Amino acid sequence: MRRGPILELLEKVKGGALSPEEAAERLGKLPFEDLGFARVDHHRTLRQGFPEVIFGPGKQPGQVAAIVRSLLPQKSNILVTRCGPEVHARVRRVTRKARYHEAARAVSVVQDETVYGEGSIHVVCAGTSDIPVAEEAALTARLMGNEVETTFDAGVAGIHRLLSARERLAQARVVIAVAGMEGALPSVVGGLVSVPVIAVPTSIGYGSSFGGLTALFAMLNSCASNVTVVNIDNGFGAGFVASLINRQKSL
Amino acid sequence: MRRGPILELLEKVKGGALSPEEAAERLGKLPFEDLGFARVDHHRTLRQGFPEVIFGPGKQPGQVAAIVRSLLPQKSNILVTRCGPEVHARVRRVTRKARYHEAARAVSVVQDETVYGEGSIHVVCAGTSDIPVAEEAALTARLMGNEVETTFDAGVAGIHRLLSARERLAQARVVIAVAGMEGALPSVVGGLVSVPVIAVPTSIGYGSSFGGLTALFAMLNSCASNVTVVNIDNGFGAGFVASLINRQKSL
Amino acid sequence: MRRGPILELLEKVKGGALSPEEAAERLGKLPFEDLGFARVDHHRTLRQGFPEVIFGPGKQPGQVAAIVRSLLPQKSNILVTRCGPEVHARVRRVTRKARYHEAARAVSVVQDETVYGEGSIHVVCAGTSDIPVAEEAALTARLMGNEVETTFDAGVAGIHRLLSARERLAQARVVIAVAGMEGALPSVVGGLVSVPVIAVPTSIGYGSSFGGLTALFAMLNSCASNVTVVNIDNGFGAGFVASLINRQKSL
Amino acid sequence: MRRGPILELLEKVKGGALSPEEAAERLGKLPFEDLGFARVDHHRTLRQGFPEVIFGPGKQPGQVAAIVRSLLPQKSNILVTRCGPEVHARVRRVTRKARYHEAARAVSVVQDETVYGEGSIHVVCAGTSDIPVAEEAALTARLMGNEVETTFDAGVAGIHRLLSARERLAQARVVIAVAGMEGALPSVVGGLVSVPVIAVPTSIGYGSSFGGLTALFAMLNSCASNVTVVNIDNGFGAGFVASLINRQKSL
Amino acid sequence: MRRGPILELLEKVKGGALSPEEAAERLGKLPFEDLGFARVDHHRTLRQGFPEVIFGPGKQPGQVAAIVRSLLPQKSNILVTRCGPEVHARVRRVTRKARYHEAARAVSVVQDETVYGEGSIHVVCAGTSDIPVAEEAALTARLMGNEVETTFDAGVAGIHRLLSARERLAQARVVIAVAGMEGALPSVVGGLVSVPVIAVPTSIGYGSSFGGLTALFAMLNSCASNVTVVNIDNGFGAGFVASLINRQKSL
Amino acid sequence: MRRGPILELLEKVKGGALSPEEAAERLGKLPFEDLGFARVDHHRTLRQGFPEVIFGPGKQPGQVAAIVRSLLPQKSNILVTRCGPEVHARVRRVTRKARYHEAARAVSVVQDETVYGEGSIHVVCAGTSDIPVAEEAALTARLMGNEVETTFDAGVAGIHRLLSARERLAQARVVIAVAGMEGALPSVVGGLVSVPVIAVPTSIGYGSSFGGLTALFAMLNSCASNVTVVNIDNGFGAGFVASLINRQKSL
Amino acid sequence: MRRGPILELLEKVKGGALSPEEAAERLGKLPFEDLGFARVDHHRTLRQGFPEVIFGPGKQPGQVAAIVRSLLPQKSNILVTRCGPEVHARVRRVTRKARYHEAARAVSVVQDETVYGEGSIHVVCAGTSDIPVAEEAALTARLMGNEVETTFDAGVAGIHRLLSARERLAQARVVIAVAGMEGALPSVVGGLVSVPVIAVPTSIGYGSSFGGLTALFAMLNSCASNVTVVNIDNGFGAGFVASLINRQKSL
Amino acid sequence: MRRGPILELLEKVKGGALSPEEAAERLGKLPFEDLGFARVDHHRTLRQGFPEVIFGPGKQPGQVAAIVRSLLPQKSNILVTRCGPEVHARVRRVTRKARYHEAARAVSVVQDETVYGEGSIHVVCAGTSDIPVAEEAALTARLMGNEVETTFDAGVAGIHRLLSARERLAQARVVIAVAGMEGALPSVVGGLVSVPVIAVPTSIGYGSSFGGLTALFAMLNSCASNVTVVNIDNGFGAGFVASLINRQKSL
Repeated sequence: MRRGPILELLEKVKGGALSPEEAAERLGKLPFEDLGFARVDHHRTLRQGFPEVIFGPGKQPGQVAAIVRSLLPQKSNILVTRCGPEVHARVRRVTRKARYHEAARAVSVVQDETVYGEGSIHVVCAGTSDIPVAEEAALTARLMGNEVETTFDAGVAGIHRLLSARERLAQARVVIAVAGMEGALPSVVGGLVSVPVIAVPTSIGYGSSFGGLTALFAMLNSCASNVTVVNIDNGFGAGFVASLINRQKSL
Repeated sequence: MRRGPILELLEKVKGGALSPEEAAERLGKLPFEDLGFARVDHHRTLRQGFPEVIFGPGKQPGQVAAIVRSLLPQKSNILVTRCGPEVHARVRRVTRKARYHEAARAVSVVQDETVYGEGSIHVVCAGTSDIPVAEEAALTARLMGNEVETTFDAGVAGIHRLLSARERLAQARVVIAVAGMEGALPSVVGGLVSVPVIAVPTSIGYGSSFGGLTALFAMLNSCASNVTVVNIDNGFGAGFVASLINRQKSL
Repeated sequence: MRRGPILELLEKVKGGALSPEEAAERLGKLPFEDLGFARVDHHRTLRQGFPEVIFGPGKQPGQVAAIVRSLLPQKSNILVTRCGPEVHARVRRVTRKARYHEAARAVSVVQDETVYGEGSIHVVCAGTSDIPVAEEAALTARLMGNEVETTFDAGVAGIHRLLSARERLAQARVVIAVAGMEGALPSVVGGLVSVPVIAVPTSIGYGSSFGGLTALFAMLNSCASNVTVVNIDNGFGAGFVASLINRQKSL
Repeated sequence: MRRGPILELLEKVKGGALSPEEAAERLGKLPFEDLGFARVDHHRTLRQGFPEVIFGPGKQPGQVAAIVRSLLPQKSNILVTRCGPEVHARVRRVTRKARYHEAARAVSVVQDETVYGEGSIHVVCAGTSDIPVAEEAALTARLMGNEVETTFDAGVAGIHRLLSARERLAQARVVIAVAGMEGALPSVVGGLVSVPVIAVPTSIGYGSSFGGLTALFAMLNSCASNVTVVNIDNGFGAGFVASLINRQKSL
Repeated sequence: MRRGPILELLEKVKGGALSPEEAAERLGKLPFEDLGFARVDHHRTLRQGFPEVIFGPGKQPGQVAAIVRSLLPQKSNILVTRCGPEVHARVRRVTRKARYHEAARAVSVVQDETVYGEGSIHVVCAGTSDIPVAEEAALTARLMGNEVETTFDAGVAGIHRLLSARERLAQARVVIAVAGMEGALPSVVGGLVSVPVIAVPTSIGYGSSFGGLTALFAMLNSCASNVTVVNIDNGFGAGFVASLINRQKSL
Repeated sequence: MRRGPILELLEKVKGGALSPEEAAERLGKLPFEDLGFARVDHHRTLRQGFPEVIFGPGKQPGQVAAIVRSLLPQKSNILVTRCGPEVHARVRRVTRKARYHEAARAVSVVQDETVYGEGSIHVVCAGTSDIPVAEEAALTARLMGNEVETTFDAGVAGIHRLLSARERLAQARVVIAVAGMEGALPSVVGGLVSVPVIAVPTSIGYGSSFGGLTALFAMLNSCASNVTVVNIDNGFGAGFVASLINRQKSL
Repeated sequence: MRRGPILELLEKVKGGALSPEEAAERLGKLPFEDLGFARVDHHRTLRQGFPEVIFGPGKQPGQVAAIVRSLLPQKSNILVTRCGPEVHARVRRVTRKARYHEAARAVSVVQDETVYGEGSIHVVCAGTSDIPVAEEAALTARLMGNEVETTFDAGVAGIHRLLSARERLAQARVVIAVAGMEGALPSVVGGLVSVPVIAVPTSIGYGSSFGGLTALFAMLNSCASNVTVVNIDNGFGAGFVASLINRQKSL
Repeated sequence: MRRGPILELLEKVKGGALSPEEAAERLGKLPFEDLGFARVDHHRTLRQGFPEVIFGPGKQPGQVAAIVRSLLPQKSNILVTRCGPEVHARVRRVTRKARYHEAARAVSVVQDETVYGEGSIHVVCAGTSDIPVAEEAALTARLMGNEVETTFDAGVAGIHRLLSARERLAQARVVIAVAGMEGALPSVVGGLVSVPVIAVPTSIGYGSSFGGLTALFAMLNSCASNVTVVNIDNGFGAGFVASLINRQKSL
């Protein structure tokens, strides 16, 4: 954070080289950043435990590797989403810590293993095809310092599977519910727990599933009051918000 | 069914007044109905147990009463859907058998109490606001000679209510599942039974429920294989098809 | 079905090692499955005649073959939908019973030839492009132990073809009507028979057919009361529900 | 049509007061209408047999009456669409020839009874609720000097009614097919005749009929090649184009 | 047309082997086609000048060639739409008359050069990208025996080009107006002529053109009363209906 | 919670009147609720601080009052949403504690003033028309025992207003951002804080705001990672989830 | 604009009561507005000629009058959009300058008659039903100190009317083109002028005009490059931006 | 511009070979272009500084090169949009002036370096993925003779970046704001400046961003009054209109 121009100006006021009125006038004209409003964004301590995230699609392996290299000195964890093993291969040349998560289609670089979460986050998904999105959510939460549990393939048409996981669901501080097709899972899960449920619609389905739109709308219309929703296939976003919630401490 | 023109023609062939060739030529030119193809539609016996249905909206009480009067001699049951008590009041002047079903917003005239169904039909609905549509389905099925059971207010966010009804659901030959909002009920019900489930989306909800469209699409994308769907708020259609299924006999 | 934990607990009650009150307390905390609610799903006899189905898209031939191998001991019929001949080639290495159905783009493994259906199922489709979906429906119904008849290429713009099949349609216990484009077929078929008609919209068409959406909506708005609808291209679902209906026996 | 400025200019050229070059220059700068391009629109003879049409919605009875009064001297027929009897009452004060068509919700003033059409136009509609739109089409065609036949309540789920009208349909030079809900009628009609079919979707239906959109799309996707489509509820447009087609003469 | 079964039956009536009553009974049960209703469809003379059309997409060159071969004996013209030169190469092996129309992406086989149309059809299109659809319309009309004129690249933002063609447009008996993007062309053309205008939206455009949907809706909402619409990119349909209109003769 | 049937059964096992095997058999057949699974839903202590909520629309004042009366003994706070002062007048007859919140269009009955939240919840809204939804969110959070701050009329086109509130926003544990029209507020707010932001689209706007759909989609596509979304106008849902988050304690 | 806190702080620095470092620290923590960033919004001179606008819908006449009263001292022009004469009656009690514009459904209070525009703005609309929106645009532009010309009822299906206005259109510095239905007007106008065209879709139309959506999309897809678009019925927005453009001066 | 036919005709009038009346008659029948109305389009001076634009997609490199060659003699600047380096390679063979702009995916040929704009145009975009569209806008504006400034990667979730550019934004005469996802940028920018803002939605995003539709609608619903919108990804259109605005001179 550059505070140079302000200090300089204040020194002049102190020295009498500038009247307070003139100084006030000049202050109003300084570019925004110089006034320190950008502070939050660069302030290291406030950002502890936040991963640096690189959205994979549309980027060349070489580009990703270059970005990773530039981020390494920050000592944060790094996450590359929606990418293939060829991206991992390239990033590995930059750092040995790069690991490929096939199920989540992601690369991680762990540099910070602090536990930031207070309790655990439970990720539940409906079908096997929803697993990549669920794994992206789980991986994000883990990289942000959370303990994560998962229950996969627990669709509502086989309700007993979900009910079997009920005790464990009840112990989580946040639940992420991932589903495509009719998107009914978050409603049922929402009724089984009394903590926030973050619903993630997936683009799994065909015909009138409209690439996840049907699931998205179903989730927004959930009859369970503890459900909020993120964009289609946005496992990262769900993992991110769940982590924020799980960091909440008693004041 | 008028078979006059054909018989007349055949008599002429028999009597030699017309050659078979000429008769064949004329047959091809007769209006369709005269050839007997309309038979099914008027054939009384094939239609036994089918109610005469009057779609209420847009019709004056007097118009409805007039239609009812014209249908009475057929001795079928009569159903007027989506109408208010003022329609009932007017129909009652035509027949004392007219009864108003407040929950279903319908008028019935029962003239045929035969039981046509083999087993029972179970109507389940998600919220109290879905009850009118569920009742329309139930009433339709009853007027078509079926034993009907109902489980109302069994939304998926309170899954235990649905599970409590599981034994009874398992005894039905067809289940009708009615729900608005996220429309998740048929998927859960579909997983609990092994008979056909007819899903009815309702226009209950607000915002992105789009007047029932979200529920409709959710049901079409059900992960339960035994679910088929009818139009939004179409309780009558669901009751009708359920009745057809329940009439199926061993051959 | 594991009933171990419960029996164990009950033995302790019997032996006096546990008071009924303590036992009740523990019962409430047991995981769901242990209480036997998952029974239906694994109960062999209730599932007789139900095929095991593998949704082909997105699966490697090797993966499909592995799943097939694991299902063989159950002695059910097996169906792999929407797959190519290369999947068949791979599955054949696992079992000689694997057969490829080119028109339906499916692989079947028949292990159970019992006839479960009471009557016959008639599959009718509008255009030649709709045949793959119609064949998927027909194949599903056959694998579930039904006699199946088919009438293909009977679009409503050439109404005589459909009328020619009228007698045969009238003998079916369920009709499956498959159509893309304007999706008018189920309405016409629905008027010709008095049994349930399951409508399957297909993604056939261009421009404002919207990948089958126009046909889907047309079918949901059918003026024939005996029509219910499944998702776009869901031939399997239609065949499945038709089979359930055709199994209905007199009670 | 004012041709004043041009004639004036040409007189000056003739008289030598203006060189041809200067005249050409000025011509290019004259406002468009002065050059006579607006001719067609006001040319009486080309417009013979075209009614003057007033779109009723949003206009006060007094406003409509005033417009009618201003149109009377042209001696064309006049049509006021989508209006109630109160509009008729007011227009009647302007001319005794005003007649109200309840079924078509329209007012007509006939001043020209010439027959302009070569053959006849057949208007067919699916349900009784579609009749107002069908009547608007029929009335438009009659006011444009055509012989019009009608077949109402001939929905495709009762195909025999339509088939009964087949001979008469085949004699028309143009067919107008009006339908709401699934909009299947034009496809079936299109297959029965070999003349142009103008399809009119209506806003009749509920739920996923989307105010006529489902019927509109179904018609645009008709498998019959002789079908073209107009906007939802646009009976006037269909009657207008059908009249243009029926005026076509041998050259 | 088989009339065998009827004649046979009538011979029996004549010979006394069958009473008229029994004959009437049997007639009602005969399959539809036997009664002669399918007549129209196969009746050669009624179909004169109608091309046989093969929708190209999804068909192998070999399949197309086989269909062409089977159609050749009917002596109609043959049209293969939306296909590449490789299809032409294959069809040429079947008949030397096969010709490839690059602009229309179509193959034609001309066997009937009769002129069936009374006047001429004018095809106008907005942009150069719309030309393939316009050419498909023009080719269809030519194969159906019409004289066809074309005006291409006459978008409404350069209105003078369209106005230059005004005289020629006014001489046509039908106009086909083809446009993508905002789809405004048919409205302007509709105002310039007093004959039917068939509007063809094309899928040309990007962003909110939605693959032609914007143009389609614009055309359906045309303020010109003489416009009807066909499906997106349906040049064939427009050419077909225009031909039907142009065949209309004085009665 | 009835545990009668189980205890009874266990007593019989203890007394030897029932073998453990028979008891296990019977247990599996007991209705679900009897087994204690419904526990959570009725368990008072787990539900402390949760208000009873009555969705106002479609309910008569008398009906609402009756429901309120039945809920009073539970000693929870009660909230009636989206209702007018006439509902308040009627509820006041049942309890003097009923208070009308005009801005939120809601009635509250406070019976529990415990503070359950750890920190504070900040509700920010974009325009004055969004205030009713924002107030519903704020009221819900207050009834659930939270300290609530509000910043209204802070639309993004006047960014300084939002920036003025930045310090206060940064102190909240959860932020609720309410906006109609383009729905941009949550993205900007999300960038200013590092806690979860719950976005509520409102139906405020006209034309292409589609009753809130545009705002809803904008929020789902927020470039800020800490944003989740609830249904259009769902102030209650946002207040509810925010409360759940604010209750999170250190473990 | 309060600059108090800053001046106070700077005085302390000058007096030595605060070190520059401490002052810089405190500056960063001051609320935004205190730092002068809100300046633009309240700075009178920059806003000269901008009207104060009150969006009428949903406001009581009394509320509108109160807002008008509070705005009067600023000496700007005031515009109340989309309101009836009853609002005018009430505002007139506050100021005699209030005038009602029936065609624009608006109230104006003129306090500043300066001409701010460099040239003229031309408002053209397609149909008589589009006039209210066109008048709102024209009134807005007039209140912002522009000379405004109008050409109404110049739909593209009667192209000569538009062409007649061509010379006048060519003299404007900005054109506003207002149209409902197919929304083709801006494309044609865009081709006739070489200045910016602001397109305003209106909600005029029926059926597939979707409340203006069809016109909106048509305008966004205009083939004329000089067209930009505002929201449906947003006459005010068009008048506002046109005024900004017309104020542009040579630098 | 051919004025031949008119001059010829006028010469005849002058010479007396044609009466003014006959001449007027013939003038009305001449094709439009001959009358000089096409003037504007070809008139060189009115078009100064307008680039010739070739829309790249769907054109072969050779085709593009041929068009470029034909345009070179006009001495305008030439722009080929949305094309790859292979197009550049081919065009370079035609002219050495061809330059490839990788970021804008465009080829330019500069032949006219006149400055036509009065002030500067500022192009701001939200994310790095929006840069190609922003660069297309900037390049278009530069080729039309404008000074262009750019601020990229200034998304609203990091508001300080945008605020830092505030002073520079305030100096522009027009701002182009480019954004995908939630499309919030133009609203915030619109509040920071008092000049016209042209909003360009991009197709950047996934899930419910619907290929840019969400951003498009958000922009149309902007709460900032100085925003108008162009089609999705239409950087060229935005640059074009911005240039027109920036050319506005004092009169």
